[in-house]
Amino acid sequence: MKLVRFGLENNERPGVVDSKGKIRDLSSVISDLEGDNLSPESLEKLKAIDIEKLALAPSDVRLGPPVTGVRKIVCVGLNYRDHAEECKLDIPEEPLLFMKAASSISGPFDDIVFPKGSEKGDWEVELGIVIGSKATNVEECSADKYIAGYCIVNDVCERAFQLEHGGQWCKGKSADTFAPIGPWLVTTDEIKPDSLPIALNRNGERMQDSNTKHLIFNVAQLVSYISKYMTLETGDIIATGTPGGVGLGYIPPKYLKPGDELELSISGLGVQRQVVRFN
Amino acid sequence: MKLVRFGLENNERPGVVDSKGKIRDLSSVISDLEGDNLSPESLEKLKAIDIEKLALAPSDVRLGPPVTGVRKIVCVGLNYRDHAEECKLDIPEEPLLFMKAASSISGPFDDIVFPKGSEKGDWEVELGIVIGSKATNVEECSADKYIAGYCIVNDVCERAFQLEHGGQWCKGKSADTFAPIGPWLVTTDEIKPDSLPIALNRNGERMQDSNTKHLIFNVAQLVSYISKYMTLETGDIIATGTPGGVGLGYIPPKYLKPGDELELSISGLGVQRQVVRFN
Repeated sequence: MKLVRFGLENNERPGVVDSKGKIRDLSSVISDLEGDNLSPESLEKLKAIDIEKLALAPSDVRLGPPVTGVRKIVCVGLNYRDHAEECKLDIPEEPLLFMKAASSISGPFDDIVFPKGSEKGDWEVELGIVIGSKATNVEECSADKYIAGYCIVNDVCERAFQLEHGGQWCKGKSADTFAPIGPWLVTTDEIKPDSLPIALNRNGERMQDSNTKHLIFNVAQLVSYISKYMTLETGDIIATGTPGGVGLGYIPPKYLKPGDELELSISGLGVQRQVVRFN
Repeated sequence: MKLVRFGLENNERPGVVDSKGKIRDLSSVISDLEGDNLSPESLEKLKAIDIEKLALAPSDVRLGPPVTGVRKIVCVGLNYRDHAEECKLDIPEEPLLFMKAASSISGPFDDIVFPKGSEKGDWEVELGIVIGSKATNVEECSADKYIAGYCIVNDVCERAFQLEHGGQWCKGKSADTFAPIGPWLVTTDEIKPDSLPIALNRNGERMQDSNTKHLIFNVAQLVSYISKYMTLETGDIIATGTPGGVGLGYIPPKYLKPGDELELSISGLGVQRQVVRFN
């Protein structure tokens, strides 16, 4: 299933994409795409529904993030070799984790708005994992069972805030609109995450172009690893890292300008588009 | 007001401490201590109630964390000079921020349970700020208005996970039970945070002994500063940093052992006590 949330910001309803690509309203079936509604049992029930009988959403409706009530976003740094190299940082020996405020989540087509003082806005297309069951200290071989599905995440950052204002990376990763998520949450029965083309265009120019097969630590390894350090809760998101081609990596760097358009894609997970603004 | 949440884990009710130190049940008045119930308007309504008329909670009831539905914990590192010195790190020129998973929150008297593989368990007594209104880009002079109250936070950590497993600090700060909070959420009308004795005993021995007047960046500065990088939401917690005297700071280091007892206190904010266990 391709699950979505549609409607105005903070008033989204749950939906599902039908066989013709149209959005059907799921709000008569589940309250929202959050918490226990993302469990394997709940997703099985959704799959049993004849979605073609559900009401259609308006065709031009806004899409919000396909999950709500997210309590944490765990990000994996330097998880593609070419990105570690462009950052002039060593390949990590074990997954490098940092966190991004859940309040930074926005819809896949919402504007990205850089806060006052921003100067080095940057992009990062990433494969996102959405957790479906509480996971503490789980093994790699059973990691699959704890995943509800996958989505695109744009791990937007302000590099000066991240790297030049002292301290840890969260400072440049957590502003509102710094985590466009979606358009779809694609359930695990529909997609295997281990070999997906992943790309980002800026104003039509291809900036990032890779494949999830180049992840240094793969999906199962990440879920297992993170769950040994903290409990992953239903709806938590893991952003698995970005390939080479971020603005910071160019000489000289290519940071975002007002009006820039980003287009992010991962095969099977749809396309995101955002316009960049500065406050 | 001294607000609490009492009852079994994940089944707590909201409560308030009366003039005799007994807990009164607030559940007939508010659903829980979370979200908009922490707004200035909501807290004003609570203050108007004759709490002596509310039902008493059982005298030996467990206390949970005094806030629930927390979406993020923003921690401030190296915010007391003596702690930066014992870590052999520079005094930060601006607040050093890192994040701790909200899933690490536990009650003020619950056991601290170190996950498998732990070897360097450590403590950090801290003044916690609980946010009462959504704060984006607020000025220092008005920061007060965005605060619901204060509480003790034990920023429990596993130093090997934090410092020796690669990457950012969240890895050693986010396990379940690594954020005992409470016993009370003390509202801003009852306490001024700028000169409070703060201490931690381990097995009766005083390990940390300082005063919040030694904070390098004070409460108003921190709320304002953080709100320029990310939106603070109602119920979010800022852990303002720990004074010198953590286990890591001793030569040789004094890390926690199974059965150790910690007692944390901040004047006006009560006392926490935890027993340490290892999985």
